[in-house]
Amino acid sequence: MKERMNLWVSEIFNDVYKMSYSVKRTLYSEESDFQKIDVIETDHLGKVLLNDGLLMTSERDEFVYHEMISHVPLSSHPNPRKVLIIGGGDGGTAREVLKHESVEKVVMVEIDPCVVEACKEHIQVTACELENPKLTLLIQDGIKFVKETDEKFDVVLIDSTDPIGPAAPLFNEDFYSDVKACMNENGIVVSQCENPFLALEMQKKLLSIKSGLFSKVFVYNYSNITYPGGLWSFSLASDTQNPLLDSRPLQESIAKKLKYYNLSIHKAAFALPEFQKKEVQEYLKS
Amino acid sequence: MKERMNLWVSEIFNDVYKMSYSVKRTLYSEESDFQKIDVIETDHLGKVLLNDGLLMTSERDEFVYHEMISHVPLSSHPNPRKVLIIGGGDGGTAREVLKHESVEKVVMVEIDPCVVEACKEHIQVTACELENPKLTLLIQDGIKFVKETDEKFDVVLIDSTDPIGPAAPLFNEDFYSDVKACMNENGIVVSQCENPFLALEMQKKLLSIKSGLFSKVFVYNYSNITYPGGLWSFSLASDTQNPLLDSRPLQESIAKKLKYYNLSIHKAAFALPEFQKKEVQEYLKS
Repeated sequence: MKERMNLWVSEIFNDVYKMSYSVKRTLYSEESDFQKIDVIETDHLGKVLLNDGLLMTSERDEFVYHEMISHVPLSSHPNPRKVLIIGGGDGGTAREVLKHESVEKVVMVEIDPCVVEACKEHIQVTACELENPKLTLLIQDGIKFVKETDEKFDVVLIDSTDPIGPAAPLFNEDFYSDVKACMNENGIVVSQCENPFLALEMQKKLLSIKSGLFSKVFVYNYSNITYPGGLWSFSLASDTQNPLLDSRPLQESIAKKLKYYNLSIHKAAFALPEFQKKEVQEYLKS
Repeated sequence: MKERMNLWVSEIFNDVYKMSYSVKRTLYSEESDFQKIDVIETDHLGKVLLNDGLLMTSERDEFVYHEMISHVPLSSHPNPRKVLIIGGGDGGTAREVLKHESVEKVVMVEIDPCVVEACKEHIQVTACELENPKLTLLIQDGIKFVKETDEKFDVVLIDSTDPIGPAAPLFNEDFYSDVKACMNENGIVVSQCENPFLALEMQKKLLSIKSGLFSKVFVYNYSNITYPGGLWSFSLASDTQNPLLDSRPLQESIAKKLKYYNLSIHKAAFALPEFQKKEVQEYLKS
């Protein structure tokens, strides 16, 4: 490392906090129609994907996010056969969903072909199941898809970036009305739900939307290396399924492949720090 | 902010990862006999304490660490009257311990008077109980203290920095033998136990030491904004107390003051991600 240029890639949070990673090399850098996409090989996290300069996925710890967005709802549904992923272009969520034998069809709707292209070329660890025959990958606007589709799904995963840029409209009520309309009776929807320390207002907004539409609403937390501020959340909503009462242990053949999720983590993830619980509990419904 | 100099303070992890905070002003900067001590006012985290350039405490989220190191063991002991804190010069741990009415005496042994001085002058949120009459503050080497004292304690908290600099000898077996010798029969010891993503070997070393000395050994996790890599751990050991079976809810008068700890978090903190569980389980004893 000493012989290389001292090159760093930085993510800047609100002009007050900066996370920087020493760079081995840049593998991909394109302006798509929606955002700037970079794949950088770093010393700390392996290869990382950045959308508009925000670190989305790293080889080193992508398993945390992808296992937690997938296995919590899939193990809480009695028989998940059809799964819809909105976003998720790196492929990590599809990879986890496809581990479940009950799953017959996954539709993944990613707005930006460059994300898929960049990961297929450079981040095999997440992109490895993108050619799976059970997966239908549509390059189109997820908002338009849920408005227009006649298909119904058992589990819907909103695998979105932060509510800026192309993902901003995913954080509003019209979108979730349309999501609900394409869910089967026992359907579960899980969404990336921001950081309770740093973005609690956005978390509350998303929970408030779900609370208006579903009879069961939960938040659960996880921690990885990459995302700023330690603790991150998913929100889960359903009209019938309670992830604390209705979850089944995963098949041993899936469980033994996982690095973060297990049955204890599933339950523990719903325990909220007091400051978060106080702020969100008016939106939670079990 | 635009009118100020663009000044940043950075913590660098292994030359590959850098966390930087925009600086309002520097409040304290001294070379003590042990380390460099800085108190910086930042935009992101309020006032922060740095020991040798590592961010130890921030006004914004110090409550997480201090509540979790204190209330987990104190609520797992039947009647904690005497508490020993090794390190903890910012005062935050003492502040939490002193919330418990059963506690009659706290001995805090901090090696570096500059840490105490800096926090008393500039970080009142943690230092606010350092004049409490129940607290005996000794400026001396904690290793020497536990070797020489005749006093016995119900709860011992090793509130140390990382295993470099003055805290390095706190991560070895001789020290823990001496700690055990100054514990009462139902005694519990809790130690800062590093990050399972980034420092699992050090975590295993500490657990291995405790496993050789105590008949019950546990790890529990927490997440804050400040510390790098999302997930951090404490280890807990005792010959009699099991924090999952023997814990009592906190008195309502304490519970309502807390921002992170609650009974659900207490239990959930012991659920370990699969990768961590696999590595540490040989040292855990319940």
